[in-house]
Amino acid sequence: MGGYSNNFVINEDYAVHIPDNLPMDGVAPLLCAGITLYSPIKHWNVKPGMKVAVMGLGGLGHMGVKFAVAMGAEVTVLSHSPSKQDDAIAMGAHHFISTKNAENLLPLVKSFDLILNTVSAELDINDYLNLLKLDGTLVVIGLPGKPYAVHAGTLLNGRRSLSGSMIGGIPEMQEMLDFCAKHQIVSDVEVIKAEYINEAYKRTVANDVKYRFVIDASTFQKLCTSSAKIGAIAKAGKRFPTATLLMLSSFSAIQISMIPPTTVMAST
Amino acid sequence: MGGYSNNFVINEDYAVHIPDNLPMDGVAPLLCAGITLYSPIKHWNVKPGMKVAVMGLGGLGHMGVKFAVAMGAEVTVLSHSPSKQDDAIAMGAHHFISTKNAENLLPLVKSFDLILNTVSAELDINDYLNLLKLDGTLVVIGLPGKPYAVHAGTLLNGRRSLSGSMIGGIPEMQEMLDFCAKHQIVSDVEVIKAEYINEAYKRTVANDVKYRFVIDASTFQKLCTSSAKIGAIAKAGKRFPTATLLMLSSFSAIQISMIPPTTVMAST
Repeated sequence: MGGYSNNFVINEDYAVHIPDNLPMDGVAPLLCAGITLYSPIKHWNVKPGMKVAVMGLGGLGHMGVKFAVAMGAEVTVLSHSPSKQDDAIAMGAHHFISTKNAENLLPLVKSFDLILNTVSAELDINDYLNLLKLDGTLVVIGLPGKPYAVHAGTLLNGRRSLSGSMIGGIPEMQEMLDFCAKHQIVSDVEVIKAEYINEAYKRTVANDVKYRFVIDASTFQKLCTSSAKIGAIAKAGKRFPTATLLMLSSFSAIQISMIPPTTVMAST
Repeated sequence: MGGYSNNFVINEDYAVHIPDNLPMDGVAPLLCAGITLYSPIKHWNVKPGMKVAVMGLGGLGHMGVKFAVAMGAEVTVLSHSPSKQDDAIAMGAHHFISTKNAENLLPLVKSFDLILNTVSAELDINDYLNLLKLDGTLVVIGLPGKPYAVHAGTLLNGRRSLSGSMIGGIPEMQEMLDFCAKHQIVSDVEVIKAEYINEAYKRTVANDVKYRFVIDASTFQKLCTSSAKIGAIAKAGKRFPTATLLMLSSFSAIQISMIPPTTVMAST
């Protein structure tokens, strides 16, 4: 995450501990898609008895399903791709609604306490705000190109909220990883080699990824004569055991994560 | 409120007690504009240390200022009418910003915990969402004709919320009246006679009202040969002392309230 290199030097304040019982490839996207969904799910206090909808079952959405299910909510996936129904149920979702037909949403009006919107495609947000119960919140996580046309009346009716959430901080990142260790949650990934990146990019654009590509960073060495050493916040270096630290991820626009490099250094 | 008549019969569950120390003319709009602002101010827990902005100083907005000030918040009025500055300060507002020049908003970016939007005119809601701090909420109370064009990025940046609120319930109405009695809060009104209604309507449309017209219901008798008796939820009638009960108000589209009729009956 954050750079195509084998060695990193970072301040330990920006490092997190990866639980030993989780596979590194499935963990890599947790530092991006994972925390991006975990943070709003925690902030809006998802718990048993709550009804949560996840809009879109992609790299972000599938993490939302796993976390909301693990926190005991009744989870509904609202997806434009009916072919993803089996995946959604396998991830623990209780219901799957195809949004290809807008009429399918009508029986869900005033149903949800929280809706997590991971869809970046254009849509009528009022159709989804209407699915919120009294005091319900629709959290925008994806970034659509155009602004949402929000009818004030839809918000007034039931004191609904349209909110946004973006990534999470380091303490919450560690909390998420510990939660994942306890509940055996990782991202669904397809591990690729460095030379496959361009192909993976094309497949990501074509929506052909379940649900995150992860690059095996060891395969970079074959492509490079020397690996770059990145000193993010370079102070006196202190070596940590392999695979106990990960750099804070930057947003991965192409939904590709990296398995952590074999050697990580943190400065103190 | 609710009907141009001298006598009402209502179920006592829908009646509230008007505190003895408040003037009836100033109380009348509390049952509409008052509760409409009191409810979101209570829901979003306005208290000392919070910075609250009120967009628009009209029938709704001036109640928002009075309540937020009474609850100890630092209150800023954002108004298109610079001429209202003196009124805003007299009502207890700590700051007044003219929004005629959009640049005046720039120093206020990330300033407020809560913004109460009572403006029904068209505006760029993102300019105001940007004024919210982390986890801040902009509550829509007015009803604009066109939908708001909301940029998702504005919501993501600081986990902001755009919410709506509409009126309040009977228990909260009583709570508001008791709060008003304690803090000596009433609406700023201009009392008119029944025959002035058409003129008052014109002046309301022309934004020439400070800040609610109130009709003296006793003046209807001169206009009518017999007063209509309305049985809202008519059961066996039980007479209550004059001025202890008020019907639940319906929305007053023309910002005109009525002093309660001289005789009110409630059914049990």
